[in-house]
Amino acid sequence: MNASTDNWAEKIRAGDVRAISRAVTAIENGDPDAQRILRELFPLTGRAWRIGVTGAAGTGKSTLVSCLAAHYRAQGKTVGVIAVDPSSAFTGGAILGDRIRMQSHAGDDGVFIRSMATRGAWGGLAQTAADAALLLDAAGKDIVILETVGVGQDEIEVVRVADCTLVVLVPGLGDEVQSLKAGLMEIADIFVVNKADYEDAANFEERLVSIVQLVPPRDGWTPKVVRTVATEEKGIADLAREIEAFREAHADPGIRRAHEKEYWKNWLIRAVQQRVIKEIAAANFESRILSDMAQAVASREKDPHTAADELYSTLGRQARQS
Amino acid sequence: MNASTDNWAEKIRAGDVRAISRAVTAIENGDPDAQRILRELFPLTGRAWRIGVTGAAGTGKSTLVSCLAAHYRAQGKTVGVIAVDPSSAFTGGAILGDRIRMQSHAGDDGVFIRSMATRGAWGGLAQTAADAALLLDAAGKDIVILETVGVGQDEIEVVRVADCTLVVLVPGLGDEVQSLKAGLMEIADIFVVNKADYEDAANFEERLVSIVQLVPPRDGWTPKVVRTVATEEKGIADLAREIEAFREAHADPGIRRAHEKEYWKNWLIRAVQQRVIKEIAAANFESRILSDMAQAVASREKDPHTAADELYSTLGRQARQS
Repeated sequence: MNASTDNWAEKIRAGDVRAISRAVTAIENGDPDAQRILRELFPLTGRAWRIGVTGAAGTGKSTLVSCLAAHYRAQGKTVGVIAVDPSSAFTGGAILGDRIRMQSHAGDDGVFIRSMATRGAWGGLAQTAADAALLLDAAGKDIVILETVGVGQDEIEVVRVADCTLVVLVPGLGDEVQSLKAGLMEIADIFVVNKADYEDAANFEERLVSIVQLVPPRDGWTPKVVRTVATEEKGIADLAREIEAFREAHADPGIRRAHEKEYWKNWLIRAVQQRVIKEIAAANFESRILSDMAQAVASREKDPHTAADELYSTLGRQARQS
Repeated sequence: MNASTDNWAEKIRAGDVRAISRAVTAIENGDPDAQRILRELFPLTGRAWRIGVTGAAGTGKSTLVSCLAAHYRAQGKTVGVIAVDPSSAFTGGAILGDRIRMQSHAGDDGVFIRSMATRGAWGGLAQTAADAALLLDAAGKDIVILETVGVGQDEIEVVRVADCTLVVLVPGLGDEVQSLKAGLMEIADIFVVNKADYEDAANFEERLVSIVQLVPPRDGWTPKVVRTVATEEKGIADLAREIEAFREAHADPGIRRAHEKEYWKNWLIRAVQQRVIKEIAAANFESRILSDMAQAVASREKDPHTAADELYSTLGRQARQS
């Protein structure tokens, strides 16, 4: 096993598709081997340029990402894509999607596309996706794209690892005001108005631009708006140009280092929180105390906030005694 | 202040709309008065029947909820609606939505509709919504509807408090496979196929029914599928009938008590986790140690998992010393 996993890390470094694919599966399953591999490969990371892509279902993100991948391949760059898709194993959404997506890059080892369907608990998804991005980084991919379906807190955490984040919107899909959830405004470096051949696209873009003007610039950058029709490969070059402009505007090594450090600070806090959460859920409440407390609340003898306060102090006492 | 808040609880019990509205705002803002009111009112809760409604943006949930509210009003029941909408304060999404929705129930004190736009951290949103539901319960609403936009983990947590959960889908909006995220399958008691006048509705419903058959029944209940056209008030009576059938199937007081206890167990674990998370984020890492660790990771001197392990043990030592 050891000899085979050593070999494994070597193969990943060399960009071997099957070895990478096995490692992503190991990450997804929380396999201890995955952590060993990641620890070993970590010093090789930090070279890939990471693009985050998020937006609601049905906005055409997958097609857009596929176009971007083709664009970068044409420039001779290697590309890795991690699509976080919490679709049910039940409906086979993720696997099916992968097959369809891979078809357009069939036979090209320079593109690695993989969905991850792990749902995990709070923040678990984001951590899994970030680990997979590190893996592709270590495997030598020049560009790593993190794609995520949806606009919830989980999804926003997924793209936070990216150097540059695209938020994909579609004119006329649902209520556009609903699409502009608070968190999205804060993470978008570039808004992509996809399916820009819809009739109200110009109007939608205009409203979007006027909203974007109100966002305070981050590091001197005001979010850009780019129109695409991904299914016809229109606007992809424009989009790549804006991504490049963003990259150049943030090329200062000092800024990059500061961002990287900030990112890892948050990552570490979250990782420690996760460990504590796991400990609280699994171990500390096996006793009767939680059950009795819940019973007291359910029967309205005790209010839940008081019960939580009491449980919390019990926990503190236990920690000090251990 | 004290006299006025005592009076406040009294007014809430009596169903006073302005008092309830002020209390929801207090809950949203994390105002300490809110906790005091909730502690005071908690013994009065546990009487409302709670319906959760979730689904992606653009599925017509708000209209559907408005129709359901009208249906229950016609039966002489009072209704409270908490719509969790993490729209930006920026775009004013929540407030605008409320105004439009309230118009159809104007002048009827028997319906209380309110959006909550608090984003909060992990689980914060769900807890805020659950507190608001308790408030409406204490205010004597017979039916409390918890509506949430989206299908992420946050949203699923919001509806978990409900006695019966509706998942709203629309044929032809985006990829229907994507709509059936894993978590939704686990929480749906009734699937509502809204906008059932779309041409592929029959086909969509058929596929949905065949998938639903594969779900293992929970407490002897297999999720039902109901077709509606909320904008034309079609199918609402059918839906209400299925909700009533669900209610009767789960009327056994033993089952209700067991559910209630299980819910509060999870609630308490989460509440304690939240307290610990806040403590970790705010207090324990003000020192140089986190910054140094992040620096070591950013410069690839240390891998992040090892750094997290080290931070975690530091935390344990601190707790034992305090």
